[in-house]
Amino acid sequence: MITRSETKAVRVGALTIGGGAPVVIQSMTKTKTTDVDATLVQIRELAAAGCELVRVAVPDEAAAAALPAIVAGSPLPVVADIHFNYRLALAALDAGVAKLRINPGNIGGQERLAAVVEKAAKKDIPLRIGVNAGSLEKHLLAAYGVSPQALVESAVSHIRLVERLHYDKLVISLKASSVPLTVAAHRLLAEKVSYPQHLGITEAGSAFSGSIHSAVGIGALLLDGLGDTVRVSLTADPVEEVRVAKEILTAAGVRRFGPRIISCPTCGRCRLDIKRIVEEITAKLAGMTEPLTLAVMGCAVNGPGEAREADLGISGGKEAGLIFRRGKAVKKVPQDKLVAEFVRMVEELAGRREGLD
Amino acid sequence: MITRSETKAVRVGALTIGGGAPVVIQSMTKTKTTDVDATLVQIRELAAAGCELVRVAVPDEAAAAALPAIVAGSPLPVVADIHFNYRLALAALDAGVAKLRINPGNIGGQERLAAVVEKAAKKDIPLRIGVNAGSLEKHLLAAYGVSPQALVESAVSHIRLVERLHYDKLVISLKASSVPLTVAAHRLLAEKVSYPQHLGITEAGSAFSGSIHSAVGIGALLLDGLGDTVRVSLTADPVEEVRVAKEILTAAGVRRFGPRIISCPTCGRCRLDIKRIVEEITAKLAGMTEPLTLAVMGCAVNGPGEAREADLGISGGKEAGLIFRRGKAVKKVPQDKLVAEFVRMVEELAGRREGLD
Repeated sequence: MITRSETKAVRVGALTIGGGAPVVIQSMTKTKTTDVDATLVQIRELAAAGCELVRVAVPDEAAAAALPAIVAGSPLPVVADIHFNYRLALAALDAGVAKLRINPGNIGGQERLAAVVEKAAKKDIPLRIGVNAGSLEKHLLAAYGVSPQALVESAVSHIRLVERLHYDKLVISLKASSVPLTVAAHRLLAEKVSYPQHLGITEAGSAFSGSIHSAVGIGALLLDGLGDTVRVSLTADPVEEVRVAKEILTAAGVRRFGPRIISCPTCGRCRLDIKRIVEEITAKLAGMTEPLTLAVMGCAVNGPGEAREADLGISGGKEAGLIFRRGKAVKKVPQDKLVAEFVRMVEELAGRREGLD
Repeated sequence: MITRSETKAVRVGALTIGGGAPVVIQSMTKTKTTDVDATLVQIRELAAAGCELVRVAVPDEAAAAALPAIVAGSPLPVVADIHFNYRLALAALDAGVAKLRINPGNIGGQERLAAVVEKAAKKDIPLRIGVNAGSLEKHLLAAYGVSPQALVESAVSHIRLVERLHYDKLVISLKASSVPLTVAAHRLLAEKVSYPQHLGITEAGSAFSGSIHSAVGIGALLLDGLGDTVRVSLTADPVEEVRVAKEILTAAGVRRFGPRIISCPTCGRCRLDIKRIVEEITAKLAGMTEPLTLAVMGCAVNGPGEAREADLGISGGKEAGLIFRRGKAVKKVPQDKLVAEFVRMVEELAGRREGLD
């Protein structure tokens, strides 16, 4: 149902961002970058959770000095995040990072930006031009205020500068903590340039608030077919950022990461302990990668019919539960054996076990 | 930034849905409707959490018989949710409900639908025509498959039937567990009719998965200016549905419910325990209704500048934290007094206390 917007393909290590490649999930370490061991532990946790690209902050020379060891030990391509000091960007490139994120609005002017671009081009390392609503150029703020126009004009002016230096391995982000502003800006950007888009809501907040804000903003853009890489920013463990990113990509229909369990909210018609059953099934199927759709429904109303797209589903009944496949009843199972039998059938369908019936 | 789509205004008890009224938050009880006391306890919990309209399932005559007592005791307007049996719909109208939700695809044919509409019209009670991807008419499935077209054609055919009976107090929902399908269907519906839209993702799943799916789907539509009432469906306590709904409306910029705390995700530059500070501030400001924007930022990079839209913010520094207002530093405060002083200043700004400085 979603037609992805056509963007240039940019290689980042062994990954591709844009050009129709699967939307890349990235996150950022929250350790001190100078603590190489702690940073590598966190990167490995992120990789295990499904993160595909990892960014580290490089606030000073000590952090830049830690980069070679981090790059060498990381299972994921490493992006260096640089503000203010273009010398740190040059040092990061020398350290072997796979990508550089700079905010052209605060890197110290166009000459210094040019120095960074030249070195990146020489090493064939992509740049993310990360424009942020909080650090827009004064003339743009004066002309447009904090607006989609200002964010896009800022990005486009920096893109043109890089293009004049004959370099185009670029990824673009336009971040704001306002969701409507972020969404409007990325839509406008897509009308102007075809570079891959990095989506995220900046300073989104706590795990709860930030997840919802990120889902609304990133999700709306993904549904438009925009977005080539996403980063969910949460004031929380970065592993949670990856978990939320996967769920947003699943919801928008652009990627799948194992089974999706749809389940009814339960109501006065409910005949099953849906919440417990969903938790049990979720736990038992952890690690399964097959993109099955499974349904847990409380009653006949929202049962086989309403969950007809489910590969396998359970619905409640008076004494026994019903297991159904694509809208058709398959078997009745007593409630105390329902979860075990359902999980067995799911695993069978997923090809983990040989089927006996 | 968002222009709300123009819809008819429909009165539901003392509420208005559509016509530019604030987007109404609704939920549904998960108790047995026949257990009047438990149902009223849950309705009061929902009302306390910010729910504005409550729906109860009416699966049988015993549930219908409980409705008068529920309607009499509820602090919120009550919607009766009816499937299959049009006599239950007639009984609910006699019981004094403020609105009726029916799924025309399973109410027993057009004559029975007409009987319900006539009684609703006589009592001036609005109807929600709730079309669900799981119970579409066979001829529509044959023509369009499970698609936005099929959902919208189904809704429009039922709307026309009701209009021919000279009734137009209608709210329309098109629900599916697929987010892209739901979003595409509501966008298409808005091109065809101007009845208020009820947004929700059906069978969205667990609190985590369902919140993200709901945020992506409902959020994308709200950002389009669509949606006059929302229901987040979760396999969880319904109070959680209301909490998620409020956060989605806040993220989409269409309603505010007290302060919004933006906070950086923290990174290798961070000089504050952001997560703890956000939790403390959130707890201390619980119940505040002023729509302030507050920022908790780890460092100078993402501090006053990037959070310049914040009414008040904190950013980390070497020894002391900085409190800033709309991008300008106001005062430095030692870290051990930072949260207390920040909360004091927020309360002062919100008008709770007289300012002394």
